[in-house]
Amino acid sequence: MPRISLYPFSRILSVLWMSLALHTLANAYDGLVEKQIFTMPTYTTESGRTLKEVKVGYETYGKLNAAKDNAILITHFFSGSSHAAGKYKVEERAPGYWDTIIGSGKAFDTDKYFVISSDTLVNLNVKDPNTTTTGPASIDPDTGKPYGMSFPVVNVRDFVNIQKALLDKFDIKKLAAVAGPSGGGAQALQWAVTYPDMVSRTIAVIPFGIELHPYAVAEILLWSMPIMLDPKWNNGDYYGKEEPIVGLTHALRVTTFSAVSPAWAEQKFSRRWAVGNPLEAFSNDYAVDAGLIAAGQSRAKVVDANHFLYTVKAYQQFSIDADLVKLKSPVLLIPAASDLLFPPERSQRAAQKIRATGNYAEVFILEGDGGHLDGLTRIVQATKVIDAFLKRPVTAKK
Amino acid sequence: MPRISLYPFSRILSVLWMSLALHTLANAYDGLVEKQIFTMPTYTTESGRTLKEVKVGYETYGKLNAAKDNAILITHFFSGSSHAAGKYKVEERAPGYWDTIIGSGKAFDTDKYFVISSDTLVNLNVKDPNTTTTGPASIDPDTGKPYGMSFPVVNVRDFVNIQKALLDKFDIKKLAAVAGPSGGGAQALQWAVTYPDMVSRTIAVIPFGIELHPYAVAEILLWSMPIMLDPKWNNGDYYGKEEPIVGLTHALRVTTFSAVSPAWAEQKFSRRWAVGNPLEAFSNDYAVDAGLIAAGQSRAKVVDANHFLYTVKAYQQFSIDADLVKLKSPVLLIPAASDLLFPPERSQRAAQKIRATGNYAEVFILEGDGGHLDGLTRIVQATKVIDAFLKRPVTAKK
Repeated sequence: MPRISLYPFSRILSVLWMSLALHTLANAYDGLVEKQIFTMPTYTTESGRTLKEVKVGYETYGKLNAAKDNAILITHFFSGSSHAAGKYKVEERAPGYWDTIIGSGKAFDTDKYFVISSDTLVNLNVKDPNTTTTGPASIDPDTGKPYGMSFPVVNVRDFVNIQKALLDKFDIKKLAAVAGPSGGGAQALQWAVTYPDMVSRTIAVIPFGIELHPYAVAEILLWSMPIMLDPKWNNGDYYGKEEPIVGLTHALRVTTFSAVSPAWAEQKFSRRWAVGNPLEAFSNDYAVDAGLIAAGQSRAKVVDANHFLYTVKAYQQFSIDADLVKLKSPVLLIPAASDLLFPPERSQRAAQKIRATGNYAEVFILEGDGGHLDGLTRIVQATKVIDAFLKRPVTAKK
Repeated sequence: MPRISLYPFSRILSVLWMSLALHTLANAYDGLVEKQIFTMPTYTTESGRTLKEVKVGYETYGKLNAAKDNAILITHFFSGSSHAAGKYKVEERAPGYWDTIIGSGKAFDTDKYFVISSDTLVNLNVKDPNTTTTGPASIDPDTGKPYGMSFPVVNVRDFVNIQKALLDKFDIKKLAAVAGPSGGGAQALQWAVTYPDMVSRTIAVIPFGIELHPYAVAEILLWSMPIMLDPKWNNGDYYGKEEPIVGLTHALRVTTFSAVSPAWAEQKFSRRWAVGNPLEAFSNDYAVDAGLIAAGQSRAKVVDANHFLYTVKAYQQFSIDADLVKLKSPVLLIPAASDLLFPPERSQRAAQKIRATGNYAEVFILEGDGGHLDGLTRIVQATKVIDAFLKRPVTAKK
């Protein structure tokens, strides 16, 4: 089968994910973290399908108080999981993705708050033993086989409904805050309008805005395209067969490209060749191309292709424009200055729309040249702003 | 073979190319245009391969004067051709891509200048009867079969060398100017440093800068990726067989995405569905996705997949950084304000580098929200600036 050759890169490590990991090494959430599993006997999706034994993983940091009013829900980004802080084992290389702002004395202070973070439905990282999710790769209890494409299309409201059921288990009636980066910001905003009586404050980091802009609707479906071009995808029917790993690798390559920045490409790779002079052979690529493909390869090991496609579909549908009138709590939007995927003006426009409903909205822009990923790697800049926002009195309407 | 379904869109026309076409209807270059063919018996590429019977098409507008010093060379963009102005037949829908600035009384005034525009090597539009080029789809005179991937990798210096030979045929010793948009701007700048004694002035519109930024190196190879994922690409060996039309369609879809803008997506499509509610079926896409795929389908009819890949490879190599010291004429850079592919700051940085060589550089920014394509659709804004630049005295160094 003709294929794009994948680089045998021992030299170029998965630079991107390394850089995400290394910056927080010295500063991890103190306690060891344990992944737990939440099961719903049945869940009826927004599209009307009733699924049995829906499971998602979750983690908690800090302690729920007696009044059960100190919980903060953390919602994860597109390719992320509920591993937002801490380590599973002391010897692990890196803690969860937002460890710089979750922990004792940090923005989300675990001495004060009970922080709970959950995996979404159709989470990408099916093959990561620390992720639990339900989606096309899950066994349908009715057939004993993977759902595949018979799994219903879901959306961000479904993600939020499952989280609501998880909080019900803890008897949490009101969240001190809900917060998340990127797709997690979409979930947070969805929370604020779907369960307005349960949300005291919303923090959306590197957010879409109040809907996924049509340009981004197009961009994120480009991420899916390589999977659908891979013959091994086989219209989603590949379980127990060879998986569409090449398409998935390139899907994750494109996703990574959307999340980085010109400065990232310049600083990590410049115009260096991967191996030989591109003039001398068609297969001689540039280092930046090889680096993105290597990042895709590295990530593909734990990702299920159909879950990737379903997550894209879920986020494409995100819009709370029509529901914004239901909002009754303040919102903090934290875009990143160099984010090309969701530029800061989308947050500014969202803030205007939120203010027009009579609610408080604040925008704080992360400085940096790392693109969308600055919402993970540079979030510590927002520590004081988040702290002040969490102390802000909550009123029904501003 | 599992495939992304292609939309049977009679409703959604190729909106993008329509919009390019319509704005110039009322205003075409007066004379009818005739495509001509230039043949070189042999050409030795920058990589050292000698090719026989190298052909490219060209068009001319206006008349070469007796002194042969009134020629302006127009160099075309990535997916373009030498059809820069006028119509082949009166009844044609649209004139060449820069008709608003080429013609009697226009920025490139054909009452005064002899404008010559040539197809590049490895031009995409092999199946367009009005494009002539040499590349992988051409018959190798030594074998009687298409070159396929045995065609040597070429670069922008090769494009320019062929154009130089074309100008030699006309006995043109010095160009009044060389000008082109996007990849054509790269060619124009390559001209200025490769044949500095032949260039009086350079105009690079929506240009890369003085090199293709590593971030753009990565982005344009993403355009190629869908072709290389299509099994029918067959490592470039598809002539006389089924062609990789699906991969090519998606390659042109991604290319189009890079050239448009958020405002384009918002204004043409908003968040409308293509057909049904995306929550109800996995195959229900948004109108913006369907529109981009339809644009890709429409364009794919005249494009050869290998030529696409070779053109990407050629532009990836573009850098005149090391040769900038050879420049000895003024440069006008015309980026577009909303261009996400080559943002205006790349032009500003290029201008600084050019000024550091002691040469004159000027930057004029096209206003608009159409993205990269504003370099075609809104170029008329630059009429006065181009006119003044063409009248500017030329000095060896400023």
